[in-house]
Amino acid sequence: MPNSDSSLLANEFRALRELMAADPAMELEILRALFEQLGRATAEPTDVTYSEVDAGGVNALWCLPVDRDTSKVLVYTHGGGAANTASSHRKFAAHLAKASGAAALVVDFRRAPEHPFPAQIEDATTVYDWLLEQNPTAAVAVVGDSAGGNVAIGSVLRLRELGRTLPQAVAVFSPFLDMENTGATLDDPEGKDVFIDRGLVELMSALLLGADSTPTDPIANPLHADLTGFPPTYVAVGGAEALLDDSRRFVDRARATGVEVEFEIAPEEQHIYMFAAGRDATADATVKAIGDWLRATLDRPHD
Amino acid sequence: MPNSDSSLLANEFRALRELMAADPAMELEILRALFEQLGRATAEPTDVTYSEVDAGGVNALWCLPVDRDTSKVLVYTHGGGAANTASSHRKFAAHLAKASGAAALVVDFRRAPEHPFPAQIEDATTVYDWLLEQNPTAAVAVVGDSAGGNVAIGSVLRLRELGRTLPQAVAVFSPFLDMENTGATLDDPEGKDVFIDRGLVELMSALLLGADSTPTDPIANPLHADLTGFPPTYVAVGGAEALLDDSRRFVDRARATGVEVEFEIAPEEQHIYMFAAGRDATADATVKAIGDWLRATLDRPHD
Repeated sequence: MPNSDSSLLANEFRALRELMAADPAMELEILRALFEQLGRATAEPTDVTYSEVDAGGVNALWCLPVDRDTSKVLVYTHGGGAANTASSHRKFAAHLAKASGAAALVVDFRRAPEHPFPAQIEDATTVYDWLLEQNPTAAVAVVGDSAGGNVAIGSVLRLRELGRTLPQAVAVFSPFLDMENTGATLDDPEGKDVFIDRGLVELMSALLLGADSTPTDPIANPLHADLTGFPPTYVAVGGAEALLDDSRRFVDRARATGVEVEFEIAPEEQHIYMFAAGRDATADATVKAIGDWLRATLDRPHD
Repeated sequence: MPNSDSSLLANEFRALRELMAADPAMELEILRALFEQLGRATAEPTDVTYSEVDAGGVNALWCLPVDRDTSKVLVYTHGGGAANTASSHRKFAAHLAKASGAAALVVDFRRAPEHPFPAQIEDATTVYDWLLEQNPTAAVAVVGDSAGGNVAIGSVLRLRELGRTLPQAVAVFSPFLDMENTGATLDDPEGKDVFIDRGLVELMSALLLGADSTPTDPIANPLHADLTGFPPTYVAVGGAEALLDDSRRFVDRARATGVEVEFEIAPEEQHIYMFAAGRDATADATVKAIGDWLRATLDRPHD
């Protein structure tokens, strides 16, 4: 039986949506505090230490599995849109780091709406550049969930524009990609997604883009990007997600330009279902599959 | 210059009180999410791993410094009253664990008002008993901050009632002890304390005690306890605190019955100022002093 909508994460989502519905004019600071609590869904991983770092002027958090290959690093761009931090995503990034035998470096990028697009892309690429200055031979993957999946992909597109060496791999989970909000699964009369709906993504895309960006900018919306030469990519998404179609369209577009893509749709699962790592068998299976894939992909010869 | 009220923690407190003032009927779930964010004040300590554990039926979190004396354990009872968790106090407990060369076991006790006094005492003593079953020769300190300082002291008093081997040491920081709220520093016309005031402690003491307990129960209010035979105790408190008098009266009472007490008042400092460990020199100095004292006290011969 897959993790049903009675799961821990689904219950967190439902409680959050109830509080948001009870106060439609909720202060952003309160919304952020509530989103931050979604980190409760993830169990504390064992055998990982942590260290805050100034990564070229951007705050970041190292997740350092005791047993790791020091030549492998995951640059992790967290989800949450205008909310969440490296702190709420620390445990999940650490589970992925353990599963892939790598360190993870979680980017605590500036957030919208105070700092709309492309601040998150700038901060992620700054951290990437800083990392390669520190460790020029590192095998790097760029990894992110939800709105952070968008930042992960957008950062790699921006690195390509800048002529930088690209990461060896990209992995995104339940990515929020379509800033035009045109996905076929977004308006689901069955309401299978207990958290994401049109109202929420319209709020988030407006906050993320701010007044000066367009929803078809290919760095903000990879469904409009030329993906030629994009690194091997793993996409994992829940089958119950309102954002399922963002993943489908990205995967179709990537494959059409010859990008190597692994695409996992977990039946019935909710948004960022893998966030229940350490507490839920389906989440753990996805983390293991991504970890195995990242390990193998980062082991390939590279420049 | 001591850490002034312009500090990071003071700013967190002010922002929190502003949000509380803007919504006097704030949902408990929102209040808890906001209190949880106070954990931001503490820097991520390096070289510590973590592990969730079922400690005799009570959830707890191990903080395991890579370099530690495996015979020493701090049982940590977190503050926050009806709010906060092992998660918000993880980093602070880990700083203390590192400073004292011990592991810390943070008790995720049941919370008021759903589970008023003595649920917290029961859970803390359950964890203590479980720990000594696992490691009968451990040198144990019971440690806590704010309302968790009350739980720390009350648990030791309860262990004495139960005839258990007492811990080797107790350390409390900015403890909230007086459930009658009669402290001389509570009504401060200068308003030096930017967080705690009479309204907040009256709310908290009512939530913590529930309908069935009295504010003079010596396990709930150690200012009414016979402290004969109480273990060596370290008390640290900020000079600007509305709760300063709780510490003063406890120390006077303890010393009057022959308890060995170290008492540190940090001039001008706010409630739980040591929570800014890793970010503030005064906090770090207190953590080091407590750590040195715990290390030495746990090194003494014991049964």
